[in-house]
Amino acid sequence: MTDRPAHPNRDTPMENAFSDRITDVPKSFIREILKVTIDSSIISFAGGLPNRLFFPVKALQKAANDVFEEAGAEILQYTNSEGYLGLRQFIAERYRQQEGLEIPVDDILITTGSQQGLDLLGKTFINEGDDLVIEEPGYLGAIQAFSLYRPRFHPVAVREGGMDTTALARVLRERQPKLLYTVTNFQNPSGISYTDENRGAVAHLIRGTSCLLIQDDPYGDLRFSGTRKISFKHLLPKNTVLLGSFSKTVAPALRLGWLVAPPLIMDKLVIAKQASDLHTDYLAQRILHRYLADNDLDAHIATIIRQYGKQKEAMCAAIREYFPAGVQATNPEGGMFLWVTLPAGMSSMALFEAAIKKKVAFVPGTPFYVDRKDSNTLRLNFSCSDEATIVEGIRRLAEAMNEGGVR
Amino acid sequence: MTDRPAHPNRDTPMENAFSDRITDVPKSFIREILKVTIDSSIISFAGGLPNRLFFPVKALQKAANDVFEEAGAEILQYTNSEGYLGLRQFIAERYRQQEGLEIPVDDILITTGSQQGLDLLGKTFINEGDDLVIEEPGYLGAIQAFSLYRPRFHPVAVREGGMDTTALARVLRERQPKLLYTVTNFQNPSGISYTDENRGAVAHLIRGTSCLLIQDDPYGDLRFSGTRKISFKHLLPKNTVLLGSFSKTVAPALRLGWLVAPPLIMDKLVIAKQASDLHTDYLAQRILHRYLADNDLDAHIATIIRQYGKQKEAMCAAIREYFPAGVQATNPEGGMFLWVTLPAGMSSMALFEAAIKKKVAFVPGTPFYVDRKDSNTLRLNFSCSDEATIVEGIRRLAEAMNEGGVR
Repeated sequence: MTDRPAHPNRDTPMENAFSDRITDVPKSFIREILKVTIDSSIISFAGGLPNRLFFPVKALQKAANDVFEEAGAEILQYTNSEGYLGLRQFIAERYRQQEGLEIPVDDILITTGSQQGLDLLGKTFINEGDDLVIEEPGYLGAIQAFSLYRPRFHPVAVREGGMDTTALARVLRERQPKLLYTVTNFQNPSGISYTDENRGAVAHLIRGTSCLLIQDDPYGDLRFSGTRKISFKHLLPKNTVLLGSFSKTVAPALRLGWLVAPPLIMDKLVIAKQASDLHTDYLAQRILHRYLADNDLDAHIATIIRQYGKQKEAMCAAIREYFPAGVQATNPEGGMFLWVTLPAGMSSMALFEAAIKKKVAFVPGTPFYVDRKDSNTLRLNFSCSDEATIVEGIRRLAEAMNEGGVR
Repeated sequence: MTDRPAHPNRDTPMENAFSDRITDVPKSFIREILKVTIDSSIISFAGGLPNRLFFPVKALQKAANDVFEEAGAEILQYTNSEGYLGLRQFIAERYRQQEGLEIPVDDILITTGSQQGLDLLGKTFINEGDDLVIEEPGYLGAIQAFSLYRPRFHPVAVREGGMDTTALARVLRERQPKLLYTVTNFQNPSGISYTDENRGAVAHLIRGTSCLLIQDDPYGDLRFSGTRKISFKHLLPKNTVLLGSFSKTVAPALRLGWLVAPPLIMDKLVIAKQASDLHTDYLAQRILHRYLADNDLDAHIATIIRQYGKQKEAMCAAIREYFPAGVQATNPEGGMFLWVTLPAGMSSMALFEAAIKKKVAFVPGTPFYVDRKDSNTLRLNFSCSDEATIVEGIRRLAEAMNEGGVR
């Protein structure tokens, strides 16, 4: 290390002292947009929240009461970094029943939301300048989390049916990336799912390389139509890390997610976990576990997807009715979002300004691209508005498109 | 970047793919030790846990019930990264009443335990190779958290009364470190507190430099004797970041801590927080806030310290009675730990082996030194054993010392 010059600004020492990494992380554009939508006359398709109507308030209250009553002080003490065994057993059993996957409990780490899973993977794998493949458009939270570890991002397009395997093959050949990050079911932001064929093709390209595939699946249980697709864990058992979450099926506030990785990786992840927050809230783990033991999660999920499915249908029908012919939209089989593509050359940022005047909001595509370019794409959320509101919002948005010259 | 060679081990790609940082982090030595102490015939002074007898189980159960009843679904939804306003107001008010500090609520960030505060500071400030001053012996969790960001550690000794200011002055002059990490009250592991004079001398050295002082204070409320000392926030208002925790006063399982920093730093910390776990468990924040609103925290703390104080007295008295004359121990005014120094040249690792045979456990000093050297020091916890057990444990430990040739 060379000697440093005296600090130029001694009154506010911190100003020049920030790490390089923190200056790299994009500030959440969505936060800024959500500020605009506080105005209650605005119909907002901008949010990314599950619908609070379906939070199991009474059942979680009962679960909390029961664990306090039965376990007492134990649920308030420090615990192990790996997470509550009972909760990890529930997750393992669910993988077995739903996907035919045999996941040893020791391969499951409880995380403080699946967002923390991304941070732990960044800590464990990414050296500055490491090559990382990310979907384009891609999940904003993953871009943020990984950015802190300063990888070189290689965006690969996703479109109907999954990832562009030609582009993926080129990146794998040219860069030998360390990580490939995917949201394979009802992706945020696009609503796109990978077909079984696409998964097979991606797996074929990855197999035999040193690339680790991260399959992040927060929405997989929220399927309205179609059939469950094969997990990358079946296709690439040694090269796959799974991320999961209870945020979209039970409740997000508790910040409970999980990560599945083989022992060699898990050893390192547990060290990273311990350094990050020692362990995830144990009271929350015990409440959730009790809720899951005493309630039928699948019946609860069925209630959610019945309503989300209706809302998605209403949005797609209104899009067909009102949007100009040159505008395309995805028609997801599940999840909370769909993705709109304006004719080439149109700006979704410009449309956003016009839409706010019409009292309707959405998220322009910009934050979902690593280079944060202006684009002709935008994200619409359908989980938080009822069907009549959705129809009215889409009508307003179509008006803004028409007046903005979208054809 | 240069091209990489083909990967040598294609079957287990992860083995060679870990980040440099994760291989730097010391595995928790204490975890390994705690495994030994599962044997219930062993008296353990090795743990670092608050005593579960004092967890307010019934009051937290009532608080949980009340917030579910009154706030319903709201407490289960995603929330802001900064944390619940009511909880931040409580913390600000407590700083005002207890320390005469005027902390704007906007300067307070709720963290997933104060351990996360360390991670967020690492993310926000540390570039690889940055100079960082840490106490010696120092808090293991801080060494772990900061290690992930690969600083150059400069240990400065703490001893009765606080930090070695001669050594600190030298490091400040020679290295112009970016950060100075301190646990100023009843430090873990040593039980040492900085006197007002020592704080003044440290502040005098820091003032006018670009060094940021982190004052981590998880134990400050657990004072049995003596008087509260001045906060570095008074002495160095612009250069000080405060960390706090509810883990030792209410309950650790909820993982609720906080961080105080000026707006310029807070902007960056919030970005780091969002990337790390979006926000801290909101249900837990609301339960704790309700508990704090409906109960007298100071009365609760008074109950804890009455007992911890008796246990500390029992340990100090037994040490005076049983330990060989050449062994020294700190006599802390609060907290959960005291620190024992064997005669020069003795090994606490060797003593540990002998002590386990006598059915008593402690933590050798090793993990509290950045270079993890064997040492003649060890940490004893007094918060989790009753007075009779403490006397018996110290008697056994003295036996191990005597048989090991300690004089």
